[in-house]
Amino acid sequence: MILRDPVHGLVTFEAEEEAVIVRLMEAREVQRLRRIRQLGLASLAFPGAEHTRFAHAIGAAHVMQRLLERLRRVDHSLPFWQRVTSERARDALAAAFLHDLGHGPLSHLFEEAVPGALPHETWTDRILLDPSTEVHQILVSQDANLPRRVSELVRGHHELPYLSKAVSGTLDVDRCDYLLRDAHATGVRYGEYDLPWLLRSLQFVEGPNDRERAPMLAIDGKKGVSALESFVLARYFMFQQVYFHKSARAAEILVKRILQRALYLVRDGVPLPSMPAALASFAAGDQPSLADYLELDDQVLLGAFHAWERTSDPILADLCKRLRARKLFKTIELYDADAASISEAHEKAREIARQAGLDPDVYVALDHASDTPYSEDSSLLVVFPKGRARKPSEVSMVLDRLSGAEYVRTRILFASELRESMREALIR
Amino acid sequence: MILRDPVHGLVTFEAEEEAVIVRLMEAREVQRLRRIRQLGLASLAFPGAEHTRFAHAIGAAHVMQRLLERLRRVDHSLPFWQRVTSERARDALAAAFLHDLGHGPLSHLFEEAVPGALPHETWTDRILLDPSTEVHQILVSQDANLPRRVSELVRGHHELPYLSKAVSGTLDVDRCDYLLRDAHATGVRYGEYDLPWLLRSLQFVEGPNDRERAPMLAIDGKKGVSALESFVLARYFMFQQVYFHKSARAAEILVKRILQRALYLVRDGVPLPSMPAALASFAAGDQPSLADYLELDDQVLLGAFHAWERTSDPILADLCKRLRARKLFKTIELYDADAASISEAHEKAREIARQAGLDPDVYVALDHASDTPYSEDSSLLVVFPKGRARKPSEVSMVLDRLSGAEYVRTRILFASELRESMREALIR
Amino acid sequence: MILRDPVHGLVTFEAEEEAVIVRLMEAREVQRLRRIRQLGLASLAFPGAEHTRFAHAIGAAHVMQRLLERLRRVDHSLPFWQRVTSERARDALAAAFLHDLGHGPLSHLFEEAVPGALPHETWTDRILLDPSTEVHQILVSQDANLPRRVSELVRGHHELPYLSKAVSGTLDVDRCDYLLRDAHATGVRYGEYDLPWLLRSLQFVEGPNDRERAPMLAIDGKKGVSALESFVLARYFMFQQVYFHKSARAAEILVKRILQRALYLVRDGVPLPSMPAALASFAAGDQPSLADYLELDDQVLLGAFHAWERTSDPILADLCKRLRARKLFKTIELYDADAASISEAHEKAREIARQAGLDPDVYVALDHASDTPYSEDSSLLVVFPKGRARKPSEVSMVLDRLSGAEYVRTRILFASELRESMREALIR
Amino acid sequence: MILRDPVHGLVTFEAEEEAVIVRLMEAREVQRLRRIRQLGLASLAFPGAEHTRFAHAIGAAHVMQRLLERLRRVDHSLPFWQRVTSERARDALAAAFLHDLGHGPLSHLFEEAVPGALPHETWTDRILLDPSTEVHQILVSQDANLPRRVSELVRGHHELPYLSKAVSGTLDVDRCDYLLRDAHATGVRYGEYDLPWLLRSLQFVEGPNDRERAPMLAIDGKKGVSALESFVLARYFMFQQVYFHKSARAAEILVKRILQRALYLVRDGVPLPSMPAALASFAAGDQPSLADYLELDDQVLLGAFHAWERTSDPILADLCKRLRARKLFKTIELYDADAASISEAHEKAREIARQAGLDPDVYVALDHASDTPYSEDSSLLVVFPKGRARKPSEVSMVLDRLSGAEYVRTRILFASELRESMREALIR
Repeated sequence: MILRDPVHGLVTFEAEEEAVIVRLMEAREVQRLRRIRQLGLASLAFPGAEHTRFAHAIGAAHVMQRLLERLRRVDHSLPFWQRVTSERARDALAAAFLHDLGHGPLSHLFEEAVPGALPHETWTDRILLDPSTEVHQILVSQDANLPRRVSELVRGHHELPYLSKAVSGTLDVDRCDYLLRDAHATGVRYGEYDLPWLLRSLQFVEGPNDRERAPMLAIDGKKGVSALESFVLARYFMFQQVYFHKSARAAEILVKRILQRALYLVRDGVPLPSMPAALASFAAGDQPSLADYLELDDQVLLGAFHAWERTSDPILADLCKRLRARKLFKTIELYDADAASISEAHEKAREIARQAGLDPDVYVALDHASDTPYSEDSSLLVVFPKGRARKPSEVSMVLDRLSGAEYVRTRILFASELRESMREALIR
Repeated sequence: MILRDPVHGLVTFEAEEEAVIVRLMEAREVQRLRRIRQLGLASLAFPGAEHTRFAHAIGAAHVMQRLLERLRRVDHSLPFWQRVTSERARDALAAAFLHDLGHGPLSHLFEEAVPGALPHETWTDRILLDPSTEVHQILVSQDANLPRRVSELVRGHHELPYLSKAVSGTLDVDRCDYLLRDAHATGVRYGEYDLPWLLRSLQFVEGPNDRERAPMLAIDGKKGVSALESFVLARYFMFQQVYFHKSARAAEILVKRILQRALYLVRDGVPLPSMPAALASFAAGDQPSLADYLELDDQVLLGAFHAWERTSDPILADLCKRLRARKLFKTIELYDADAASISEAHEKAREIARQAGLDPDVYVALDHASDTPYSEDSSLLVVFPKGRARKPSEVSMVLDRLSGAEYVRTRILFASELRESMREALIR
Repeated sequence: MILRDPVHGLVTFEAEEEAVIVRLMEAREVQRLRRIRQLGLASLAFPGAEHTRFAHAIGAAHVMQRLLERLRRVDHSLPFWQRVTSERARDALAAAFLHDLGHGPLSHLFEEAVPGALPHETWTDRILLDPSTEVHQILVSQDANLPRRVSELVRGHHELPYLSKAVSGTLDVDRCDYLLRDAHATGVRYGEYDLPWLLRSLQFVEGPNDRERAPMLAIDGKKGVSALESFVLARYFMFQQVYFHKSARAAEILVKRILQRALYLVRDGVPLPSMPAALASFAAGDQPSLADYLELDDQVLLGAFHAWERTSDPILADLCKRLRARKLFKTIELYDADAASISEAHEKAREIARQAGLDPDVYVALDHASDTPYSEDSSLLVVFPKGRARKPSEVSMVLDRLSGAEYVRTRILFASELRESMREALIR
Repeated sequence: MILRDPVHGLVTFEAEEEAVIVRLMEAREVQRLRRIRQLGLASLAFPGAEHTRFAHAIGAAHVMQRLLERLRRVDHSLPFWQRVTSERARDALAAAFLHDLGHGPLSHLFEEAVPGALPHETWTDRILLDPSTEVHQILVSQDANLPRRVSELVRGHHELPYLSKAVSGTLDVDRCDYLLRDAHATGVRYGEYDLPWLLRSLQFVEGPNDRERAPMLAIDGKKGVSALESFVLARYFMFQQVYFHKSARAAEILVKRILQRALYLVRDGVPLPSMPAALASFAAGDQPSLADYLELDDQVLLGAFHAWERTSDPILADLCKRLRARKLFKTIELYDADAASISEAHEKAREIARQAGLDPDVYVALDHASDTPYSEDSSLLVVFPKGRARKPSEVSMVLDRLSGAEYVRTRILFASELRESMREALIR
């Protein structure tokens, strides 16, 4: 199989150990990822951001191929039983390709919006392990234990920690791909970093102590520090520009309000048209069946929202119409605010909504977004041909300065018709 | 308004004459373009190709901005009444932004697939001119005649032909944007050409004869020939790689078969769930109302296909399942075949299907795709500081060689389960 | 004039106010910049880094064009006497184009290597103001005061500080171009930042106090913060990867040693072949004449080095041969070293050289390179539609963290034949 | 060894079989290529085109690495004695790296300009085979027969023709690199083509007949046709835009005139300062010694030209000054001209020069440049999984149309002071 990928260019799955990807690509549960956008509704802020989890899955598998190529160049320093065998490569490729299988519609947004929804990792696990899925059947046809091994890799466990960390860790193939892919689709070039150089700078070192003598990956100190810095900064920039973008956040709030309202109505006995079975289960306080969950995708969810524009509940209908017509909530950012002034601003905003006859639980939101771009932990070291291994912060001025720093955006969001009164009351 | 576009980078609509774009962007009929993919189902062949008509509309307006900037640099050679006024610029921008307003779901595919469907240009016209649309209302709020002028520009008419040709002509802003955008999204880099240089090489010349003294745009022969060549070749490559890609064509055939079957069933009195009102009108031999037509988009159509997986008609259900699970028809290409051998091959293929118990009208298709990358006409000239204007073919070896050449791909498509017998029968 | 630039693409100088660039490009003193590499001998570390000051001068003028375009979009907020007139634009373009006119061979390296050499800024001034130069004559033919005004702009003075800061300031066109150009030529992509977005985010604000009511440029806080961050980080990365690259520094040390030795020999009465007149003047403790200085370029200097391979002084001959054959000094980096341990290491290294029969003043060097990527000063503010202006560090986590931080690399350099003994003695 | 290359990004030579590159890079004769510009004086037309043969040699070796990687993926279809062994890979890498070793100053220009100069291929051969060179010694230290084998590879001979054609053939690594590199340095993006896809589309097929049963490389017809088309077109565009650019050609003419004049004077007994020994040999009708030839490089030649600005021969001095100050000859292009009208125009131009007191043999030139972008030969086939191999023109409309077509530019060049009278006389 040979593919054009807008991010990585030529992508091929032609080796023996890659055949599993080709077969998995046909699976119904994998094809479903074509209908789940990688960035949820960020396309409402970045018109190009329509890319899907399916394209990302291919990209993550491709990065894994390149990582495996690097590992095999350097694994002669390991005892042979710790090297990358063909079987381990196959497992890692399958895990990279399938790591996001369990995402609900609109990706992360769904599980955040639906109270009680299981995290997507749990659904990934169920899809891998349930004998009814095509993914499971394909994996089993290769090796009866493959579903379990892939599941463990995705959850970060493997006898060779360097493999499971490549699927799920600080420098994993997931992040390696999504930063580049989100940058490509949004046009936010800051998210680009130097993937070839980063891969080239990986080396094996012994684990730090007797209990963890398993080899781990480290950064070549002569060559790789800036690749690591740029990777960390790329992530920072993507949070700043895209993931915390005010319109993207406003769209997310709207989806959450819609889902909350819909579940509330259903629990209240109000019938809603086009209600997906999985959502009905959530409303009833149950977890949906796997089959019902897999029916859920962006198309189905947004199709339901569209149908709800004509329900009798005026609030639900109104929220759905706002989303479809992109009448997003407006935003006021609170700079340098402490907890007291934030909650004061929030209360003021709610009062303004109340006076305008709008339910503040629906039409006002406090959005507190935060991320820590870089936290030093013991699992990533920088090594030199001679001399001792060092922490990244010892050799990088930038990482030293950023380590542990939290990046925070605090905003009040509200229905757009409240803009004038909100600005008057809240902007200093 | 300031936007990030993955193709053009920074896009701004901040000038007085650009304010119309900002207002139009809020219109319901424009927001609808977010739900119509630029390349229909080409994403089944190119996982990145999820980009929408909405993003393309922004891109086309942006190219128009840049074209207007160029025109204003050179329009001092024209009498003042033929120059780019602020009003004309506004009209041209609106036309560039709205030129695709009438597209049905999956873009071109829909009008090709539904017998009797009006072309999207007619729907664009109706949306522009119908007082009920938000687009119309916004245009009218600027100038009562604006809907009519935009409509004429989109259809290629204007007192200044250089303006209408910029909206709809050989070198129009539509094509300028979509080649780059499709190239970006698919990863087919061959579709990239040198837009800045092409724009820079445009100059005004007098029209060729007394009846058409109106100024027209020409290419600067000292600088612009290779920009023109690369533009023509970019188009050729995109047809070769993307628009005529075998899986993209196979997906299109499947959609056509689904729509044909569904319309046939409805006409036959079989009720189908989730039937969009517009499709029901088509089935009844009527044109849908504008409101019904505007309800149609990719989400609605694919939602209907999804519902039809559970209809009682086994063929419709089967086709819909194939599409969703991406079990596309397979392809055999006929190289250098003449009409007789093509029809012989087609008949053979139909016979094979018949023997396998499959209706050949449904499960076999002959796909004859053709395009002429470059045809010389009198409307594009190459000019020099001294000496006479020349045709492109006089100064370009490549255009001379390509002029009039037809690019053809002929293929037999068929349900994938027929692959072995088809290959045996048809490949020489 | 229309040019292809590998960094900026299409570059044109076609407007009335840009005609000065076209004329200046013919001047002998400008053509000389073709023979001066932008990065001195960094091509010994980065094979692609052969780009010249001439290409950079064009790039800086191009960035100035784009900056002026931005300023004119926003200068309606200024009183008319503070706006960008055509004359001021012409002056600023000329200053951007000519700002590096006075560089000696190998750019910065020369003035650092020759004791007593005037800084290149002084030579730029002399070239601008001396009636014998073609540059002066061209400027004067436009306006008798133009040489003086350009000279002042280059030195950072103008009645409108926003113009002079654009030629020489934190965000000047010089740096805007050289970061991108050095990144392009070396292949160090980290040096790329978002120039269009940075330019777009510039706005006018009133100067901070009564004495400085002149308008200054500020960053749009809604849109421009990450463009500014990426610009600062690009500079950091270029220092880390290129300007402080060990082989680039080693080549610089070698050139310095050659020049020191040659000047020492000449002062000592030893005649050297192909001695450029300007160097002879420096040796005699004089400043060279302008004509002699202008004869100096990379070609002349490296030609002299080549000739000196056959001089009788064994040290000079040896150093010149090393440079030509790229037998650069080797490097040991001192991490986290304090002054005492640095000087101890240096002394050890000198002793090793001595024992090996090599003059430590020639064959050993201590290289202490440092740069402060970002220092907050009062001249750059971030502004918002409402609310007060803020310092960059108030709105940027990254700039807040980096502000004032010094980036330091300390290395011992030595002749390559000493490598083994040096590594043994110095690496911990 | 790990390098940043502006064209290919990360370049590493770390494998056992690549060690030869690392050692060769230190050789004096390889370092000399740093002083020879890839495109001669094209930088007078494209300010960025300062890149050297040294950078190109690295690039060619890198492309060879990637080609070898592809060959090894598909060579299991060959009998084992025809596969890519480690030794063959080493030889091919060395040949790719050294293929341009014999170039004189300013690349091709030199051997065209000096009557009787041996072609650079002959010098390459001498450098490889002469025991005095460092290159030879390094090769011999690996294998006594390596110099001979590399020499044969460079000249297109090897027991495995697919290897020698990779060094010197239609799709060789030389061309693969220089098209991309020249495109990168000049900013002429049209020279970019899809290298990864081209490499991926290579496959082995049996040679066409009994006598040539050796395996040869062919293009995968399912995937590779457009990569091949874009490669051919890239070459066409580079000729059109760069190699035949009027200022580049004008600079070449000037260099030729200078060298002709200098050799004429020397033969006439006029002593010239800074005369390189190799040129003196040419003047005496001899071939220079290898040592003298290797002393020649851009720096030495341009240094001589600079010195000759002060010779007593007014014509030589004048030509040298024109080159340094970039007062190039001007150009009038003759479109669609037949032999008679060309020679008539040439005679007119000479007469005009004569009347202006300028020697027409020096100050007028007829420049007839031609290239055939694509000629079909039997050595390149397109293959399919089933069915017979085909010629490229059978499967590519563009190659069919272009095959055999000659691209021609005919120009009269003359001293710039003759411009007005020339234009009056020659432009129709």
